[in-house]
Amino acid sequence: MLFSMTIEIITIGDEILSGNIVDTNTTYLADQLWRQGLIVSHHTAVRDDVEKISDALLRAAKRCKAVLVTGGLGPTADDFTIEVAAKAFGVGMVTSQEAMQALENRFAKMGRQLRENNRKQALVPEGSVVYINAWGTAPGVHFVFEGVPFYFLPGVPREMKGLFEAFVFPDIKKRLGGDVFFEGRFYKCTGVAESELDHQLANLYDDRTSIQNVRVGFRAHFPEIFIKLSAWGKTQEEAVACIKPVEEAILQRVGQYVFGGELDTLEAVTGELLRQQGKTVAVAESCTGGLIANRLTNVAGSSDYFLGGIVSYDNSVKQSMLGVTSETLTLHGAVSSECALQMAMGARRAIGSDYAIAVTGIAGPGGGSDEKPVGTVHIAIVDDKNQWKGQFHFPYSRERFKQMVATTALDQLRRLLKYKS
Amino acid sequence: MLFSMTIEIITIGDEILSGNIVDTNTTYLADQLWRQGLIVSHHTAVRDDVEKISDALLRAAKRCKAVLVTGGLGPTADDFTIEVAAKAFGVGMVTSQEAMQALENRFAKMGRQLRENNRKQALVPEGSVVYINAWGTAPGVHFVFEGVPFYFLPGVPREMKGLFEAFVFPDIKKRLGGDVFFEGRFYKCTGVAESELDHQLANLYDDRTSIQNVRVGFRAHFPEIFIKLSAWGKTQEEAVACIKPVEEAILQRVGQYVFGGELDTLEAVTGELLRQQGKTVAVAESCTGGLIANRLTNVAGSSDYFLGGIVSYDNSVKQSMLGVTSETLTLHGAVSSECALQMAMGARRAIGSDYAIAVTGIAGPGGGSDEKPVGTVHIAIVDDKNQWKGQFHFPYSRERFKQMVATTALDQLRRLLKYKS
Repeated sequence: MLFSMTIEIITIGDEILSGNIVDTNTTYLADQLWRQGLIVSHHTAVRDDVEKISDALLRAAKRCKAVLVTGGLGPTADDFTIEVAAKAFGVGMVTSQEAMQALENRFAKMGRQLRENNRKQALVPEGSVVYINAWGTAPGVHFVFEGVPFYFLPGVPREMKGLFEAFVFPDIKKRLGGDVFFEGRFYKCTGVAESELDHQLANLYDDRTSIQNVRVGFRAHFPEIFIKLSAWGKTQEEAVACIKPVEEAILQRVGQYVFGGELDTLEAVTGELLRQQGKTVAVAESCTGGLIANRLTNVAGSSDYFLGGIVSYDNSVKQSMLGVTSETLTLHGAVSSECALQMAMGARRAIGSDYAIAVTGIAGPGGGSDEKPVGTVHIAIVDDKNQWKGQFHFPYSRERFKQMVATTALDQLRRLLKYKS
Repeated sequence: MLFSMTIEIITIGDEILSGNIVDTNTTYLADQLWRQGLIVSHHTAVRDDVEKISDALLRAAKRCKAVLVTGGLGPTADDFTIEVAAKAFGVGMVTSQEAMQALENRFAKMGRQLRENNRKQALVPEGSVVYINAWGTAPGVHFVFEGVPFYFLPGVPREMKGLFEAFVFPDIKKRLGGDVFFEGRFYKCTGVAESELDHQLANLYDDRTSIQNVRVGFRAHFPEIFIKLSAWGKTQEEAVACIKPVEEAILQRVGQYVFGGELDTLEAVTGELLRQQGKTVAVAESCTGGLIANRLTNVAGSSDYFLGGIVSYDNSVKQSMLGVTSETLTLHGAVSSECALQMAMGARRAIGSDYAIAVTGIAGPGGGSDEKPVGTVHIAIVDDKNQWKGQFHFPYSRERFKQMVATTALDQLRRLLKYKS
């Protein structure tokens, strides 16, 4: 029964097919439906063209159990999805009093005049159900054609998501979802290559028969890798029972690389450990140029544990503000573990934090040598008693190098906080 | 003649229809083809399913002048695009000696064994042209079915782009492009809302008849807005002649907001002005938490003009490292023009740069008050003689607030450097 209910998504509009915008709506919808055990078997994108839209709607009705249509619901002349749909479905258009009322309220609230082209947005195929849009002017429209439910949604992602979650998903779930219950897990990993994860977990999904109704997926999100576990059952308990052994196997084999779940970020997880332990941190950054501080401060409330940082891009700043000695620079160079350690100790002293992270390396494309090629980096972390240091080589593009170094440094602090003594 | 040649893109694979990855290939291909006056009229995505793939290929052959297919060329069991295509086209499969040789060379070079499933990648429909893939193992395959050219490309973006640019685009241009010549302009703007740009430029594109063969498009890329101008002609001169009056009108009306072209970044443009004028810069960041320094150092060679920065998140750091007085903090608070100015002067003094940028504000969600609501920010820029300061209110989410503040500060420095006396 699982995966027998297939759905088509139709995207309407010139923007995507002219290469102006990336279609993230389809990804979102496919992911949401997937959780319900509903499979998107086809995605079709067509331009703002009457015949092509009509053709796509009728074709979808023949091959799928439900159809989601996004785009072409706006007030302008090239938005005619609904009009074309009514004609394709062989019904007339009527004004939805409910939609008109919502439009009038919305415009009155903004103190703006309702224009004729907005009134058009209240016209729907006869026999439709209208979903009021709390985020914009175009209502969602639901129509059942030859037994196949169609859902028309605006193309603006925020409005599309709002209407989908409030109205479409519950309805589609009721109609097609049957007794399918979903249970998911999402693990964010760092410090490991996708090929290594794949190698460690391969027999879990190669042997599909033994883990029925469970799927294991990877997604690379440089420099992190996500593991997505999906399980379905006829009851929630069955779904949980399906996922449990796979979940345990995954955590046992690769749990050491997992730092959080779907909504976690490495900087928030690391920050939370600092907060729990009542500790503060400072950073001294050379090759990352402020990225570590930037990431730490993307977290709301980070001022509770992040005191500040020094971006010592020029060597003079390493000396004047962090106390790196000219001896260190002469003997070992700015890209050395000695320099990283002095930077960390200097930042801790200057800023007065419990911990300090320091990074110094060669982001490239220039500045490399045989001895210290582009991609070389030294990382140091100190507290009042301990020192940790590491040398790495990340031969990536400049921005990827910076991301990789920042992630490695933050993850190392996370490990020190989590596993200390 | 323009825009009469329509193309279909077919995407094959479960990843996109399961919501695991966003399809950026289609956006890229559509944009490239658009420049040639070739219109993508349909995009179809199907799962790894023999019948659905076959159906999509045959349907595309009927309605379009050329078909681009991406995905399903890998070595694993669920990659069978080529096999299905051969069957749909009614031809047998043959081993391409050229492709096999390339595979053997590639594996020999990596010191790895060529396995059976890789050999499969050299099998192509009889009568195909093979495009050797310098970036991976799956070759591109070109086949003409009932007069319609098909191009099969791997789904990995880097490989797809490499093969498209080297082989597919030149071929498709020769076959369908005819005498179409493209001329484009791309303007990146900041410091202006999309609705304002739209208002200033509306009559340029409302009145389509007067600017034949020219299209004006907008793309919001927070906090920047891009203007894309496309023109086509039967000769390059004609395309240039079409675009000239529109280009001039745009620059005259909104040129003040334009900081660069398609490949420019605000930080690189600002950095280039510093380099040309032989000046250096330092930053003192509170609410942006290192983002300005991070953006400046994303530019290769930025060490020539960026000396360093201080992220003074905690007020103690503003005092100890930047010399902000306790009087300023008590009388005006950390979020004040007085504090911003002291921070900028302190950073310039401590780091020894020609210019210094300072920002201090309330990123939220906490920390706001009636007098200074979340989103309030003060920016100051100083050199040896001059001071510039500004107060803004950006009521956005935390990360958007940081981006907006960083962009505003960098743009202000750019304006000071560009328009000074």
